Amino acid sequence: MIVLFTDYGLTDSYVGQLHAVIARAAPGEAVIDLLHHVPNHDIRAGAYLLPAYAAEFPEETVFICVVDPGVGSSRAPVMLRAFGQWFVGPDNGLFQLLARRDVDHQAYIIDWRPERLSHSFHGRDLFAPVAAMLARGEFPQASDTGLLGSAGSEWPDELAQVLMVDHFGNAITGVRAQTVSPDARLTVNQTVLPRARTFSDVPIGEAFWYENANGLIEIAVNQGSAAEKLAIRAGDPVELS
Amino acid sequence: MIVLFTDYGLTDSYVGQLHAVIARAAPGEAVIDLLHHVPNHDIRAGAYLLPAYAAEFPEETVFICVVDPGVGSSRAPVMLRAFGQWFVGPDNGLFQLLARRDVDHQAYIIDWRPERLSHSFHGRDLFAPVAAMLARGEFPQASDTGLLGSAGSEWPDELAQVLMVDHFGNAITGVRAQTVSPDARLTVNQTVLPRARTFSDVPIGEAFWYENANGLIEIAVNQGSAAEKLAIRAGDPVELS
Amino acid sequence: MIVLFTDYGLTDSYVGQLHAVIARAAPGEAVIDLLHHVPNHDIRAGAYLLPAYAAEFPEETVFICVVDPGVGSSRAPVMLRAFGQWFVGPDNGLFQLLARRDVDHQAYIIDWRPERLSHSFHGRDLFAPVAAMLARGEFPQASDTGLLGSAGSEWPDELAQVLMVDHFGNAITGVRAQTVSPDARLTVNQTVLPRARTFSDVPIGEAFWYENANGLIEIAVNQGSAAEKLAIRAGDPVELS
Repeated sequence: MIVLFTDYGLTDSYVGQLHAVIARAAPGEAVIDLLHHVPNHDIRAGAYLLPAYAAEFPEETVFICVVDPGVGSSRAPVMLRAFGQWFVGPDNGLFQLLARRDVDHQAYIIDWRPERLSHSFHGRDLFAPVAAMLARGEFPQASDTGLLGSAGSEWPDELAQVLMVDHFGNAITGVRAQTVSPDARLTVNQTVLPRARTFSDVPIGEAFWYENANGLIEIAVNQGSAAEKLAIRAGDPVELS
Repeated sequence: MIVLFTDYGLTDSYVGQLHAVIARAAPGEAVIDLLHHVPNHDIRAGAYLLPAYAAEFPEETVFICVVDPGVGSSRAPVMLRAFGQWFVGPDNGLFQLLARRDVDHQAYIIDWRPERLSHSFHGRDLFAPVAAMLARGEFPQASDTGLLGSAGSEWPDELAQVLMVDHFGNAITGVRAQTVSPDARLTVNQTVLPRARTFSDVPIGEAFWYENANGLIEIAVNQGSAAEKLAIRAGDPVELS
Repeated sequence: MIVLFTDYGLTDSYVGQLHAVIARAAPGEAVIDLLHHVPNHDIRAGAYLLPAYAAEFPEETVFICVVDPGVGSSRAPVMLRAFGQWFVGPDNGLFQLLARRDVDHQAYIIDWRPERLSHSFHGRDLFAPVAAMLARGEFPQASDTGLLGSAGSEWPDELAQVLMVDHFGNAITGVRAQTVSPDARLTVNQTVLPRARTFSDVPIGEAFWYENANGLIEIAVNQGSAAEKLAIRAGDPVELS
């Protein structure tokens, strides 16, 4: 299974071109559009979201991960082996939390190059073919680096911030619920919120926080928009106490 | 064939996680993203749209239908057998019109449970695995209920309202065109509109109503946006006379 | 491989219904959602984008192309054989540039008709089944026309205009980069821009133009939105000198 995780959005042709390369290079392989709306260029948001989602996928899944504002520069293309899965993408911090959380990870600089490598679309020209090779059980030419570059090494283990707001208006943070006390209270924009198990446990229109289905702390409103009710935007800090 | 019909939207990871579960549980099965923009939490809009679209699909199609603001509460998970097709989702009114229109339908409460059932994402954890079983020809543990819960029993057979506005600005109503006179006039927001066969039958910029390709009455403007021209929003009433 | 190229958008059910028809008529065939956000009804924008994207696909790819404001009128349905690929859609100018650039193209009026042909959704009822036949190696009943209708015959070979703005705010034009001098300067909205190789070659926040990964001239800002910074909208003229 090949899983796509990018900031490409769905209104343009980028995702389709990725699919086309994979369909030719690994025909019959299941390809999953997991998330194409990582906030544009927000490597750090992607770094915290990726491990939460990846945990739902089986071993040997191959992820193509592209949040890559430095495409065409000297940042290295890498393959990361972590938690029995493969992650292919730029070495710009996007894999920082994955690597940190799996102390047995292995990182490789991708040396393989396609016949034609555009300057602006490594997702299509480099990462997709490499992922297809891995899905087929082949190993592209690569150098064992022992460790990833230092991008993101200063980021905390849990990011007490809203990473993104979903289309229901729920605000997803970079904090794993398992790392806080079960009766913690969350403060966002001067509002203190209690914890609930799920939406239907609070009255309609009321805000709360809960552990979402991927293990992250999320701020929500029963049948409403937390983003609207509490004026939350991506990047807003949260406090847990 | 498994068909997805939800209010999950496409900008988040929910649809991808659904696909991933199905790809593992029913590999090789065709999976169709029919509609992920049922208006958020609008069970009733979904209830009237679903039969219109489902009629285009062959018998034995399995639909996963999720508009489920009460996820995690006591509303039952159900499987409905109607018109030779399967519908899997919450018993909250979403299947009300389907069940009403097929007097020979059969309804089952789903008793099967996965090893892990999150409180907020039954689409992924419960409905997708059940749909995959049905697509494989297996029958999950379930109780024959004889009838669905009463949610939506007061709704009319045809809903004279705009259910949703599409991205061209066409306004789709809950009235089947076959239920009105061929020369009916439609009134919306104080404007009376004539019927036309299709867009190109009226001058550019002119508003009309017609039977859309799924049999529902729809308000449109040739090469323009009916929603803009007539200030139409989802929920606006229409009158047919 | 069947590739979809439309102005249907992704928030509605049109794309899903297309996929459903193809899944039944050509099971197992790879189907790629290349672009569903050609600007609504903008046949000309589609005509210039299509050859740029099609060049990335292998021979024998079958494209379903729908930007079709005249659906239901007398405009003919056509199949175009160009560059070893198939293009199925309305004869309204959408294939004008493809046909012009491949002097050996062959054009056919589609005579085949389905049992049921709706007035407003030829994508589903006519073009998708025809494309499935071509993908299966069958040839639907058709008349060799020798040439396409005259729609778009007055359009230039390169369109010095912004065709669409992508979700990063990059502005894609209808000019192939190979047709201009390597040191050309581009003027848009009174601003003169230099050429760069890719995003990371200019300072963060700076605007430039470059040859995008599909060969078209594109206006961009490193880690920012060219559309916002330069107030660019689809349809804005550009000047190259």
